[in-house]
Amino acid sequence: MKAAFLAIGDEIVGGLTTDTNSGFIAGELKALGVEAVCGFSVRDEEDEIIRAFGQALRQAELVISTGGLGPTADDLTTACVAKLAGREMVLHEPSLQFMIERFRGRGMEMPPNNRKQALFPEGAKVIPNPNGTAPGFICPITVDGQTRHVACFPGVPRETRHMVAATLVPWVAARQPGRRFLSRTFSTVGLAESRIDELLEGAIGPDEARVAFRASFPRMYVRLTVDGTPDDDLEGRMDGLEARVRERLGDAVYAAGDEGLEETVGRMLRERGLTLALAESCTGGRIGDRITDVPGSSAYFLLGTATYSNTAKTSVLGVSEQTLAAHGAVSTQTAEEMAAGARRLAGADVGLSTTGVAGPGGGTPDKPVGTVCIGLAWEGGTWARRFDLGDRGRDWIKATTAQMALDSLRRWLLSALV
Amino acid sequence: MKAAFLAIGDEIVGGLTTDTNSGFIAGELKALGVEAVCGFSVRDEEDEIIRAFGQALRQAELVISTGGLGPTADDLTTACVAKLAGREMVLHEPSLQFMIERFRGRGMEMPPNNRKQALFPEGAKVIPNPNGTAPGFICPITVDGQTRHVACFPGVPRETRHMVAATLVPWVAARQPGRRFLSRTFSTVGLAESRIDELLEGAIGPDEARVAFRASFPRMYVRLTVDGTPDDDLEGRMDGLEARVRERLGDAVYAAGDEGLEETVGRMLRERGLTLALAESCTGGRIGDRITDVPGSSAYFLLGTATYSNTAKTSVLGVSEQTLAAHGAVSTQTAEEMAAGARRLAGADVGLSTTGVAGPGGGTPDKPVGTVCIGLAWEGGTWARRFDLGDRGRDWIKATTAQMALDSLRRWLLSALV
Repeated sequence: MKAAFLAIGDEIVGGLTTDTNSGFIAGELKALGVEAVCGFSVRDEEDEIIRAFGQALRQAELVISTGGLGPTADDLTTACVAKLAGREMVLHEPSLQFMIERFRGRGMEMPPNNRKQALFPEGAKVIPNPNGTAPGFICPITVDGQTRHVACFPGVPRETRHMVAATLVPWVAARQPGRRFLSRTFSTVGLAESRIDELLEGAIGPDEARVAFRASFPRMYVRLTVDGTPDDDLEGRMDGLEARVRERLGDAVYAAGDEGLEETVGRMLRERGLTLALAESCTGGRIGDRITDVPGSSAYFLLGTATYSNTAKTSVLGVSEQTLAAHGAVSTQTAEEMAAGARRLAGADVGLSTTGVAGPGGGTPDKPVGTVCIGLAWEGGTWARRFDLGDRGRDWIKATTAQMALDSLRRWLLSALV
Repeated sequence: MKAAFLAIGDEIVGGLTTDTNSGFIAGELKALGVEAVCGFSVRDEEDEIIRAFGQALRQAELVISTGGLGPTADDLTTACVAKLAGREMVLHEPSLQFMIERFRGRGMEMPPNNRKQALFPEGAKVIPNPNGTAPGFICPITVDGQTRHVACFPGVPRETRHMVAATLVPWVAARQPGRRFLSRTFSTVGLAESRIDELLEGAIGPDEARVAFRASFPRMYVRLTVDGTPDDDLEGRMDGLEARVRERLGDAVYAAGDEGLEETVGRMLRERGLTLALAESCTGGRIGDRITDVPGSSAYFLLGTATYSNTAKTSVLGVSEQTLAAHGAVSTQTAEEMAAGARRLAGADVGLSTTGVAGPGGGTPDKPVGTVCIGLAWEGGTWARRFDLGDRGRDWIKATTAQMALDSLRRWLLSALV
């Protein structure tokens, strides 16, 4: 099945809002074997919307639009689809009741404008929106004697993501009754897409699974999708493929599923009953920020410190002035003492530290911009390592250092006898 | 002038990459009075690219594409434009030499593939790309007897943004020789777009300036654009408008220009010769991360702490157990003691603190999720305030708290007799 995408709204075309819906839905449908062929963005103008739907329907059996389902006069999507399909607009009573209740629950009366959001082309399948007032719908349209479909969703990503997973994905799967699809995502760290590609070469045949990458710096996800008949043992096949992926990528795979290292590390700390303290220098607080993005992190995160000055390294963390003088602030020795100091200060089980030259200034021939040291300290031991990341900009260095520090902690947790 | 946009690449249509270029360029050209009318995203397929360019050229005088200018076989943009324009591809010697030098500078020989990136449709204006190997170009194309233009840029946002500012913006301005445009951006904090709209009502007539908003949560920018003939005193008119904007918005405007609060605050600290220490609780390190995003922040940022546990609040920052028992960790009293403690620990001039309930757990009837306290401490004084932000999610609460804390510091710096 081929799919085309329409993002509708003046704010999209004018650049005030970036369309992230089309790409997200394309990714979800890819796992079902749907081929995304093109996308359009159009303003809130009736003739422009109708023209774009027409062009899209000539290129794809399924056209998916986002936006233009609101209650105001410039929300035109539903009316345009009805016109294009040659169908009347009819009231969908359950949608109207849901909206009235939603407003009532907030102690408000539904404004009369919103009634419009319960009107749909006759015969369309309504897609409930539990998170907002704009339901979506799927409407058949005949093009050159063939039945094609238009699926319309609101522009708010959170609402649309939920509706796509709950309704569009099963709808597409059901239209391919002979096929069943199964996807599994692996979160990886430390390998570029090209390197993963190399490592997987020959491990997974092109007929065995589709392999897709999704990068969200500094994160990298690999997704395998297998398909077969409803009677095939897709889970068994996937388990076999997963074993091969894990063999090739080793512990660069940190989670089956789509999660951040801060979640993985948080879960591992919690499972082991361990607490954490941070001593950040070049990352400035980014690791603490990520650790505390996880709900419930107060169970294991005791203390973060960002000791940017040398004075703070000695007075707060107890790094010795001798170490700073002999090896410098950016050294494995300082990193170890920082981690040990944070651990001691907080009374935590593990201390994790970063110190480095984030640039643009501060580089020297020995320690150019991008030189970074990461340290760990625990009861009875310390570890530290120097990395030469190169100068790819301050933010890149901060983000990469934070990711590598979290990964160092993960590897320690994997191997530690605790 | 009307403009249409093409984002070219399998990764865009398939959802692996989000197109942010089209929106950015649309925003830049809007200031010149250019009307963005539609956008297309297409795969790396010759016929699909040519069809989209054709559709775009029927709707706009200027069609701007991004992507497909790389050295590999699936980079087809230039060849498609040449074909559509009925022009030969010719070698642009300066571009070739630039590329050869660029590779040589890195101790490498230019791969033969890259030569392709120095080929352009005959008669096209080449746009240098100082940050990459793919130059862009502007090529005239005749459509129904009228001369229209296609402008092609690489897909890498950093490269394209620079090229647009350096070349496309002046090119468009020069094609409207009777008009001159002047824009000025104001960075604001603490006001929603709708509130700014209200406050500015009646201050700026629709004929005096275009007013545009750009939100990049938690940041909000207002841009004014005026235009006139080359002889008009646009600067003088803009100065008058700026005075009116500042009168209406007051100190919600924190910078003329497009900068983050961490830059403004950093500049103010540096100008006053003051140093900063942080005591973050619910923000977990986000303020320190933002402060250290600014190059040179080590001149004024001494220490960050993220005292997530009550024990760390007492043992590291010296918050009294009495205060915690009497008022709780989320209280103005604790916030003041945290700020004072961080200041004392680091020997800094100013201490800034946050403590709050970021959720989803931890809320109580008295202090529901979204209750946040911000504190400041300086030589001879402290200040703290409680905010009830409401529960709009953990990340929203962290981001909003960090922004409000930086703004509290800014307002203190504005008023303090230091």
